Amino acid sequence: MASPITPRAKDFPRWYQDVIAQAELADNGPVRGTMVIRPWGYAIWERMQAELDARIKEAGADNAYFPVFIPESYLQREAEHVEGFSPELAVVTHGGGRKLEEPVVVRPTSETVINSFFAKWVQSYRDLPLLINQWANVVRWELRPRLFLRTSEFLWQEGHTAHVDEADAHEYALRILRHVYQATMEEVLAIPVLTGIKTARERFAGAIRTWTCEGMMGDGKALQMGTSHELGQNFARAFGIQYSSETGALEYAWQTSWGVSTRLVGALIMAHGDDSGLRLPPRLAPVQVVVLLIRDEGDARRAATALVDELRAAGHRVRLDDRVDISFGRRAVDWELKGVPSRVEIGPRDLAGGTVTLVRRDVQAKRSVPLAEVAAAVAADLVAAQRDLQAEAAARQVDRTRWVSTRDEAAEAAADGFAVLPWDAVGIDGELELAGDGLSVRCLQRPDGSLGDDTEAGLVAVVGRAY
Amino acid sequence: MASPITPRAKDFPRWYQDVIAQAELADNGPVRGTMVIRPWGYAIWERMQAELDARIKEAGADNAYFPVFIPESYLQREAEHVEGFSPELAVVTHGGGRKLEEPVVVRPTSETVINSFFAKWVQSYRDLPLLINQWANVVRWELRPRLFLRTSEFLWQEGHTAHVDEADAHEYALRILRHVYQATMEEVLAIPVLTGIKTARERFAGAIRTWTCEGMMGDGKALQMGTSHELGQNFARAFGIQYSSETGALEYAWQTSWGVSTRLVGALIMAHGDDSGLRLPPRLAPVQVVVLLIRDEGDARRAATALVDELRAAGHRVRLDDRVDISFGRRAVDWELKGVPSRVEIGPRDLAGGTVTLVRRDVQAKRSVPLAEVAAAVAADLVAAQRDLQAEAAARQVDRTRWVSTRDEAAEAAADGFAVLPWDAVGIDGELELAGDGLSVRCLQRPDGSLGDDTEAGLVAVVGRAY
Repeated sequence: MASPITPRAKDFPRWYQDVIAQAELADNGPVRGTMVIRPWGYAIWERMQAELDARIKEAGADNAYFPVFIPESYLQREAEHVEGFSPELAVVTHGGGRKLEEPVVVRPTSETVINSFFAKWVQSYRDLPLLINQWANVVRWELRPRLFLRTSEFLWQEGHTAHVDEADAHEYALRILRHVYQATMEEVLAIPVLTGIKTARERFAGAIRTWTCEGMMGDGKALQMGTSHELGQNFARAFGIQYSSETGALEYAWQTSWGVSTRLVGALIMAHGDDSGLRLPPRLAPVQVVVLLIRDEGDARRAATALVDELRAAGHRVRLDDRVDISFGRRAVDWELKGVPSRVEIGPRDLAGGTVTLVRRDVQAKRSVPLAEVAAAVAADLVAAQRDLQAEAAARQVDRTRWVSTRDEAAEAAADGFAVLPWDAVGIDGELELAGDGLSVRCLQRPDGSLGDDTEAGLVAVVGRAY
Repeated sequence: MASPITPRAKDFPRWYQDVIAQAELADNGPVRGTMVIRPWGYAIWERMQAELDARIKEAGADNAYFPVFIPESYLQREAEHVEGFSPELAVVTHGGGRKLEEPVVVRPTSETVINSFFAKWVQSYRDLPLLINQWANVVRWELRPRLFLRTSEFLWQEGHTAHVDEADAHEYALRILRHVYQATMEEVLAIPVLTGIKTARERFAGAIRTWTCEGMMGDGKALQMGTSHELGQNFARAFGIQYSSETGALEYAWQTSWGVSTRLVGALIMAHGDDSGLRLPPRLAPVQVVVLLIRDEGDARRAATALVDELRAAGHRVRLDDRVDISFGRRAVDWELKGVPSRVEIGPRDLAGGTVTLVRRDVQAKRSVPLAEVAAAVAADLVAAQRDLQAEAAARQVDRTRWVSTRDEAAEAAADGFAVLPWDAVGIDGELELAGDGLSVRCLQRPDGSLGDDTEAGLVAVVGRAY
């Protein structure tokens, strides 16, 4: 059966849109730039949320919720911050049938409102660290929207913390980067990421350091998948977040903020998708195994439901597809589009010979397996698929990363992937020139890939085209 | 140690505010009517969400997400619906630095946008039932806000479904009412509820039937805790949700919608709270047992951490409080305020005698228990507390419900609780008169408390003062 989607090699952006439409992940909302996340797309986001949330809680942060509406004046308290956001704001001027005395903005991020409460809650060093996370929708008006990657409204988590000193804030920002973000992206989403520090140009408005996870997509482009910021004392001074230290002195707190969003669903599609649709890593997949009843004849249904029970008992997330009034071929294509890692096809003919057909989605390998051995085979396939998807993405990243010496070489190499070169060979002026060619410094890191402060000598710049 | 909160008997509304402030559940947001849900309040809401979400998924509905912004024109498609909401709308007139061509409203509910997508997704009877749920924030401008009960922004879930016929829609609306809402409220929140049908006056704008769960609060007032609506074909006609039936005929779908919100946190406080603060039913409590280290001397810390491990291994949600630099008394009062069901106090003095102190929050009973028996005692206390809190709330409801015959008697009886009388003795005119006295018909039901359609003869009206 022919694939209904544009091949990746022919037109990657159109392929991306086709996958989203055909796998029923999302749709455009009626207000330009907004997004409807359909059940399959939302189930994937829920799994990401669960994995991230557990790690955020392990890192000691508590969830809370702050209002969607922020007084316009709040955004002006931290000068850099308002500059960063003002062109993107949605403004409510009328409420309850009347014009409001002061317009309110729909949060583009909750930094300002959360910090105004931190100022109330933080009094003593005993109140620190204060570690808060929020799952919420935010709005940043988007002129060139793209589903999951850039939408006027998106879902995300934003963490906000306050600490006694810079060292503690620094350590916490990196803990989130590595043990929450990088761990989830690599171990669950199976997407290897480069970690590093952003240049001043790419830094979050109001931060003193922005740490980032950058992934390479199927077309060699970079996607910023998550950032963790050290805010220094900027917001603490603007909002008056002060604590009395053990010696009784009044000090400004040191802060961090960090976030990932529904953009991760876009990353997943672009990192693992192929010409048949989405490919989900088993640890993330909302459905890991679909048991597909080909025809409802003989013992087929009984065998299918028994297998579903057996696979569930083994701890897998399983769906029974017994919609026998829809053609088998159409249903098989649909599960491929949706990227379910493992598919068991049960029909009366195979069953007469004691076998079923087992399909591994990532490599599209089909084989006949005795019914008694299918549970073990599925378990092995899931482990292998998780490993192989990650290995494939890692191999692409290695293949498409070139070490170069000059800015011109970097511009050439980054046409097809990442270029790595000494940051000294780029510099702030060079960065501006690269931007003219549609390229950006994705992050700075040490030559061995480890994290280094941007004041350090000897850092390299990772250059790429970005989403 | 004196309680820092106003006694309930003295001033119930002030007691409510005091509990919210002292137990650190929520705070007012900077924009009037908005709410900050603090970590302890949000943890309670997360537990409610988890319990509801599992039951919603069991009922076959899938989660999805629809945009926060809705074109103003969408709300006008269903005439009754727009009338119901227009005075409450927040309107965005500016986005991306410019005046918008068409203003957009912040969703007061997603009926209209979801139904515009249902019209695309529903083609054939095979697409039905279509069962969608959304967890989201919604905005209804509120002139007399009250934390959790009436806020301009609140968090909720809204379910929206489409069915082939009225019977299927009816059955599903009641399934949600009973197996999702009533089950969670009674079995988890330990709040007994009356279920019934709303009168035409109290019905949701656009619905043909609204079913409700009504709880009695500590002051005898009623709180509408959740509603499930049959929408008939009203929205299907307005939005063109049509399907081809098995015979090939084009039919309008029959629909339901249903929701519960952060108002449930308000219900919890008012149903179970006492003069020492919140009392959490163990099945809901984010922390079921707190192990409080009195002083860090001798074996006390080792015994405390060993007990935490033992209780966790037994499946309880446990918190260790080892903040020994804060006075023991202050910490004990704090956990009482927060309503943690079971508290184990471990200090060197008791421990020398091989015992610890076990406190059951709901009845404030303190006893000395040998260390080896404490895990079993905690488990028994949690079961007893869940049962007793529910029994206490049920007894109050029975005590404060009076069966009467006339509207005048109802007005008198409902000053202190619920009055039940034949609906025929009230009627539409009588309902209007009761409203003049600040009373409302909370629901109609059969005399035995079971559900009956509002066209049925012999229904009784439950009359009360409402939040």
